[in-house]
Amino acid sequence: MEEVKNIIDKLSCPLLVNDYETITMSHGGGGKIMGNLIDKMILQFLSNDFINEKHDGAVFLTDGHRLAFTTDSYVINPIFFPGGDIGELAVYGTVNDLSMCGAKPLYLSLGLILEEGFVIKDLEKIIISVKNACERTGVKIITGDTKVVEKGKGDKIFINTAGIGIVKDDINISPSRVEEGDVVLLSGDIGRHGIAIMTTRENLDFESKIKSDCAPLNDIVQKLLESGIDIHCLRDLTRGGLGSALNEIASKAKVEIEINEIHINVIEEVKGICEILGFDPLNVANEGRFIAFVKKKDAAKALKILKEEEDGKYASIIGVVKKKSLKIENGKKENGIVILKSILGTNRILDMLSGEQLPRIC
Amino acid sequence: MEEVKNIIDKLSCPLLVNDYETITMSHGGGGKIMGNLIDKMILQFLSNDFINEKHDGAVFLTDGHRLAFTTDSYVINPIFFPGGDIGELAVYGTVNDLSMCGAKPLYLSLGLILEEGFVIKDLEKIIISVKNACERTGVKIITGDTKVVEKGKGDKIFINTAGIGIVKDDINISPSRVEEGDVVLLSGDIGRHGIAIMTTRENLDFESKIKSDCAPLNDIVQKLLESGIDIHCLRDLTRGGLGSALNEIASKAKVEIEINEIHINVIEEVKGICEILGFDPLNVANEGRFIAFVKKKDAAKALKILKEEEDGKYASIIGVVKKKSLKIENGKKENGIVILKSILGTNRILDMLSGEQLPRIC
Repeated sequence: MEEVKNIIDKLSCPLLVNDYETITMSHGGGGKIMGNLIDKMILQFLSNDFINEKHDGAVFLTDGHRLAFTTDSYVINPIFFPGGDIGELAVYGTVNDLSMCGAKPLYLSLGLILEEGFVIKDLEKIIISVKNACERTGVKIITGDTKVVEKGKGDKIFINTAGIGIVKDDINISPSRVEEGDVVLLSGDIGRHGIAIMTTRENLDFESKIKSDCAPLNDIVQKLLESGIDIHCLRDLTRGGLGSALNEIASKAKVEIEINEIHINVIEEVKGICEILGFDPLNVANEGRFIAFVKKKDAAKALKILKEEEDGKYASIIGVVKKKSLKIENGKKENGIVILKSILGTNRILDMLSGEQLPRIC
Repeated sequence: MEEVKNIIDKLSCPLLVNDYETITMSHGGGGKIMGNLIDKMILQFLSNDFINEKHDGAVFLTDGHRLAFTTDSYVINPIFFPGGDIGELAVYGTVNDLSMCGAKPLYLSLGLILEEGFVIKDLEKIIISVKNACERTGVKIITGDTKVVEKGKGDKIFINTAGIGIVKDDINISPSRVEEGDVVLLSGDIGRHGIAIMTTRENLDFESKIKSDCAPLNDIVQKLLESGIDIHCLRDLTRGGLGSALNEIASKAKVEIEINEIHINVIEEVKGICEILGFDPLNVANEGRFIAFVKKKDAAKALKILKEEEDGKYASIIGVVKKKSLKIENGKKENGIVILKSILGTNRILDMLSGEQLPRIC
């Protein structure tokens, strides 16, 4: 029987991934062709004891009893961009979200939605990029899923990663811990990711090619945590940029945050392109930048740690938390607010954008 | 300042979800319009202490030290079908994958990829369906993400859920535990989900409308576990159906599984449509059916428990594990094999499908 099956296999199924140049609907059908894609592509690169089990899920042991859980779908266009690609973005993005909870990232899931006609060589590049990003950040992909949709019902590749990390008992990082007197630190210059995506997508031919700041933040967050600084809140500056992150925290913590524009670093090339295109760098997305809220007494120490990082020369203290916001007249709700002191010395409300400036930047 | 902000808000932003009938790119932009969609739509229905924090991830406590982790993306077309919709499918599917690991499902993440132009009333229906499915299965959505892609770059809505569950210390469910002498149980009739999707999608007008078997399996699995039966392996019968599930396990456990066609229940309506369309029910997807591998001595007890279920009247013992597969002549690898004893008494290899029979059924 075995031999018969073997012969049938060989005769009827030229199944190697190499036999296909692009994704077909069969690659999502749950049959041999899909199994072969998973084996030859995903498992070849992402092999580990958990995922090799090919069970419906992965079972892992943990000695911690506080865990962080997060998810993001990545629909970035283009999938390859200066300074990164959708594969590493999908790992770093979720690793960063875990880091923002004060967690040490451990395990990731990987959900792929592939469009019929997607080039398999590109998929391979992306999976290798996922593998490298996992190795760099010390996380493992332990469970996954692959779906295929018809041409015109997707866009090459969408990736979802969910992540699990472990949070030490004494760590408590949350917008609700932000309080009057806290100092706001920014981990570097802003706007590079969004502008890199924008200029690539629109084929804008500027002299200097701006690279995305796409990078993992787990190491620097671990350093801050291990330094003994009591971090009140962390937030990475993705969609909506610094402006959205500050507003979200102000609103959740119901505080007034005052920011000094002069201390927010934007490299000249980004500043120039923003001026030409009419973007405000404060609202442009980043993929390797975050803000930290700490007590005033810890601010200098935190800044020193940020500046010691390879990419940390533009880290800065950008503002302070002024006070709990006042109750609004009608008494129905409290709101947070962000005040920007401009370079010219004027004050203005840094409001959240209404809609979007740059779609599909992550 | 507060008042000014309030006035600005009112003047410049008719932001209520009600002001939009369909999803726009702005709903994924990270600004106010997106925040409003999340607040008025997602959080209104899925509110809990974790997700309300609106942090980059959720931190939860666990007293167990063995956890299961799984993920699936749902790209089913149509999103509403007889017997269910993509929302409950996205909850049940992931709850079921956790159950197949022997885990008690606890927490889910929810990642939405919405297409520009998607009808917001439909999104609301789906979120309510997610909410109801969570309540039925006792799981909580504790973290999430929403992305929007341009019209023609997605298909209404794709949902990714990842799930975390807790596995008791004495439970060990895995394909590698399947051994000679094990009995294979099937939890009900097969083929209903795939045929329900197919006939709806293709507008096939059969007299009787077949409903999907879409259902959560966590309760029945808990009952089996609590009965003291040592379950060797569980697998739900989604893409590729019973045929793929048996082949995957045979291949992973390197055994020969012998199945009796006469014991596999298929309702007459499904049988009829399969004959007309040329499908084999063994390869048609289910969303509320699973197979269980147990020792022979436990088989009758397990069957009794399955039959006591509301939807369990078609549960049956369908086969046995015959032996470890022999090494193949060239010595390079061992393979598993599934033998189907047909109703006519003949034996044939039940091979895995090569590609796909019905795309996008989950």
